[in-house]
Amino acid sequence: MTDLPPSRQRQLEQWVQKSALPTADATNWVRLDQALTHKSVDAANNYEQLELLGDAVLRLAATECLQENFPNASVGELSAVRSVLISDRTLAQLAQELDLAPYLTVASRMAVGPTHLADALEAVVAVLYLETQTLGPVRAWLDDSLLRLTAAVRQDPARQNYKVALQELTQAHSKTLPQYRTVEQRSVDGDPQRYASTVWFRETCWGSGHGPTKKQAEQAAAAAAYDRLRQTLTHESSSSAT
Amino acid sequence: MTDLPPSRQRQLEQWVQKSALPTADATNWVRLDQALTHKSVDAANNYEQLELLGDAVLRLAATECLQENFPNASVGELSAVRSVLISDRTLAQLAQELDLAPYLTVASRMAVGPTHLADALEAVVAVLYLETQTLGPVRAWLDDSLLRLTAAVRQDPARQNYKVALQELTQAHSKTLPQYRTVEQRSVDGDPQRYASTVWFRETCWGSGHGPTKKQAEQAAAAAAYDRLRQTLTHESSSSAT
Repeated sequence: MTDLPPSRQRQLEQWVQKSALPTADATNWVRLDQALTHKSVDAANNYEQLELLGDAVLRLAATECLQENFPNASVGELSAVRSVLISDRTLAQLAQELDLAPYLTVASRMAVGPTHLADALEAVVAVLYLETQTLGPVRAWLDDSLLRLTAAVRQDPARQNYKVALQELTQAHSKTLPQYRTVEQRSVDGDPQRYASTVWFRETCWGSGHGPTKKQAEQAAAAAAYDRLRQTLTHESSSSAT
Repeated sequence: MTDLPPSRQRQLEQWVQKSALPTADATNWVRLDQALTHKSVDAANNYEQLELLGDAVLRLAATECLQENFPNASVGELSAVRSVLISDRTLAQLAQELDLAPYLTVASRMAVGPTHLADALEAVVAVLYLETQTLGPVRAWLDDSLLRLTAAVRQDPARQNYKVALQELTQAHSKTLPQYRTVEQRSVDGDPQRYASTVWFRETCWGSGHGPTKKQAEQAAAAAAYDRLRQTLTHESSSSAT
């Protein structure tokens, strides 16, 4: 294993302590350095491959954590909360709380944005996972934060009411509102998901959902659409700004 | 633990043998039964919660399997292959190969579609994962299939060429073609991802990608858009058909 420059090594040791990262005794410092290196400084050894893995690890860790702690929540609700938890916005916030930014190596002219912080955090999650090939250390590190963020998501009226949140989102970007198409299903015997709803914006269906009432089906559709539409509209804004 | 009716128990034992499912000696038959039960027959004990977990487990297993077997592939390529591997279409195909359909319990009037097969397979993956909380048994069961499917994906010219695949998809549903908007990036020093591309259809951006050439950036954008657009268009077709 290649040794890191002593200054970088000390830097990483400092962050491990600060962030309470539960790495093994024989920490793979080269891999941790890679997780905190952007491709702008090293096209070969950067966080991209680790991020691909860490993204999947984090999704599984969040799913386990939510299902264990909210055994009575519906799949639709857990899925909606999960999508918020593993969104770039939430992960960037978590990375800030863990003071990750000063330890992320990027090209000097590059501005570090929320996506970079989220990606690097996912890469660090992959480093932890690879040490044991189990989710134990990842969950020991992040469960408390995930549960705190979940409580915030569930208490935030705008996020609990996805129809309102979606409407605010589309209004911020255009004058049109999302449209719901909801049908009552009769075909399946004993199916408690009586209503099926899709949500439309700009002639495109962005999400669908089911529920025992019309309102719940529409909320589920709005929840399914929210993150996808937010990412697209944000992308459009930043594209048209450049 | 509630016992299953003897006929169902024998049925499940038969499928475990047929599909070579590497369950533990003390198989949780009730949970396996749940993984193979649609909500139309049991609103409380069905595959939905297991599917939420299994979806995340399978995504992680596929990521690990791909990264281990294709250490030199780019993140973009691995990510594109992964999205095909864990798509409903591929999982339904795999479920067919494992002869899952006859063991899936659904309401008598219900037609079993590819989505149901994919969902139930994900739920079975969760059952395996929960036995050991590791990916070992899941990967022992599915790695060979994932690698075989990966080889097929990489050899299929239509899938290797995502721009062609995307064009075929949109032409099947409407007379318009997807539009690419590609820009050359100059801002970041030493960034090998020189071109950034977005793909548009019906005034909506469906995917974005980067690459060292214009062509590779557009291929990456098409790959990112493919599954999302396919799901939406399929959904529209089935909605308008009913």
